[in-house]
Amino acid sequence: MSQTLGQVGEFGLINKIDEIIAMEGIQPPENLLGIGDDCAAFQPRPGYDLLVTCDCMVENRHYLPRFMSPHDVGRRAMTLNISDIGAMGGRPRYALISLGLRAHMPLDDVIAVYRGFLAELNPLEALIIGGNVTKSDGANFIDITLIGEVESGKMLRRSTARPGDAILVTGYPGQAVAGLTLLLQSETTNGWAESPLVNAYFRPSHRAAEGYAVAQTGLAHAMIDTSDGLLGDLGHICDESRVGAVIYEKNLPVSPALLEFSERFGQTPLDYILKESDDYELLLTCAPDNVVRIRHVIENISEIPVTEIGIINEDKGNIRIITPAGRSRLNTVSGWDHFSK
Amino acid sequence: MSQTLGQVGEFGLINKIDEIIAMEGIQPPENLLGIGDDCAAFQPRPGYDLLVTCDCMVENRHYLPRFMSPHDVGRRAMTLNISDIGAMGGRPRYALISLGLRAHMPLDDVIAVYRGFLAELNPLEALIIGGNVTKSDGANFIDITLIGEVESGKMLRRSTARPGDAILVTGYPGQAVAGLTLLLQSETTNGWAESPLVNAYFRPSHRAAEGYAVAQTGLAHAMIDTSDGLLGDLGHICDESRVGAVIYEKNLPVSPALLEFSERFGQTPLDYILKESDDYELLLTCAPDNVVRIRHVIENISEIPVTEIGIINEDKGNIRIITPAGRSRLNTVSGWDHFSK
Repeated sequence: MSQTLGQVGEFGLINKIDEIIAMEGIQPPENLLGIGDDCAAFQPRPGYDLLVTCDCMVENRHYLPRFMSPHDVGRRAMTLNISDIGAMGGRPRYALISLGLRAHMPLDDVIAVYRGFLAELNPLEALIIGGNVTKSDGANFIDITLIGEVESGKMLRRSTARPGDAILVTGYPGQAVAGLTLLLQSETTNGWAESPLVNAYFRPSHRAAEGYAVAQTGLAHAMIDTSDGLLGDLGHICDESRVGAVIYEKNLPVSPALLEFSERFGQTPLDYILKESDDYELLLTCAPDNVVRIRHVIENISEIPVTEIGIINEDKGNIRIITPAGRSRLNTVSGWDHFSK
Repeated sequence: MSQTLGQVGEFGLINKIDEIIAMEGIQPPENLLGIGDDCAAFQPRPGYDLLVTCDCMVENRHYLPRFMSPHDVGRRAMTLNISDIGAMGGRPRYALISLGLRAHMPLDDVIAVYRGFLAELNPLEALIIGGNVTKSDGANFIDITLIGEVESGKMLRRSTARPGDAILVTGYPGQAVAGLTLLLQSETTNGWAESPLVNAYFRPSHRAAEGYAVAQTGLAHAMIDTSDGLLGDLGHICDESRVGAVIYEKNLPVSPALLEFSERFGQTPLDYILKESDDYELLLTCAPDNVVRIRHVIENISEIPVTEIGIINEDKGNIRIITPAGRSRLNTVSGWDHFSK
């Protein structure tokens, strides 16, 4: 029977966390000062810019503990931050973790969350260098700040798409939200463990290695991850780049699992693919001549598909979706609104 | 009547925050990419190491909204992070703010919290470069990651105190906890607005400029802020430096306000000064010959007193407190435990 945090106390918890990080994390290089002082400290590498992102996951809002194991919660929280670094062409280096935890939470669950963090960080040779734990009287929360680096001049932004650019997306956006829908309908994980949709929800992938490789080519114009949904993030690109876009519905990548799901429940896959999901794919734009090269670069790293779904144009702020019948729908663009929904 | 966050929505809130930062914050330099992409980005300065700290404040645990204005809540949250950077001899540069907020919170209160952040950052020419807002169903929380820089080789740590060092402390530790005690006893802020103790609780000072100046001299051996209380943080220095310490009770700095408070309530000021408080003073060690010089350096910046309170010795892990009568009390060292209390 695992002890609770209230039983081991803050310093007991911190000691245990430090031990896990020291034993199971990447060994810190000599020029790094990790956990154990007022601040962490590191020497930035010459020739690199630093990237910083922070993202917070709140229990019951961003994940449902009745479905998701603590290990997967940790992985997911780290994945979404890693995705942000990758979407700018960078490599994750250092993480700071701030946790708000209820006193009756089992220590073993916190350890599992940390192991989830390390499962994502270790393959990237990134380390946890600091953090903070505090008691929460409400929901648990996990706030991560992730610091990455990108070669000076290689950074990819969302504000630099150009009219005429092809729009590419990696993988199959929309699978995670379909997986969540399955779980919510059945209120149990039984029988779904093998579903690629449920797996996409439980263990979303980031595309950091792919993002880094794309940035290295210097051929992409704009890049973003799909954390606000494909349409939401294409909207961010359009807003920030002062351009518009056309999407061809028939070109959107539909995974076999999503197709089966849609047919079974009598729904169109379109909403799942376009709207808020929990997949962290890359959405990028480049000159049409470079589509093949960028696709090769990504496909050399992993087996995910890279799909050309549309074109950037000068129709500022508007995204038109062309149906298979050739009709055009104008779309209002909005991501997930955490307060009004 | 102010709108609530539920009424303005997440994007309404974010737009308002961006506007406040753009209008009232320090203007970003050209080589900085602030809010508006997947990550913030900056070019580190050659010759500097980077410092990173994160600290989280949870409503009702770290501050009591019935006593403290949103502006002061913002100031305090930023102050404790600034203090961490200053305690290592660095200068704060970039902040990332992660907020968990209830939907019925007034937008004006969030704006006031941000103005509190800027009130602390602007004088230091530090900027908010990113962040995150999420809905909280429980208590509001403010999690800040602060990035600072320190000239390579000038960083001051807690692990480098040496036997024979004098122990110095700035200001009057213990005032804030006495102020909080006053507030809790009267359950109102009425009549206390002028009390230096209550003011110390509402608007704690950091000593970042002083910490930076001390680090520049190269004369201090170890430094830390008193965020875990004077004894708690001296304990951290002793643990990490593998040394012990002697404190002379009669040398501890007692402010006139704390003295008056103690006499009025029939208490000894000692517990207030030594134990967990909410003042962010500096605790540092140096060779006895350099006490005068370090004191001058600090007193050139501000009028706070710098008091020599004891000596580092080889009695590893032990802190002895010498009473005015010459008796010695051995102290167990512990800071605030957020889970067991």
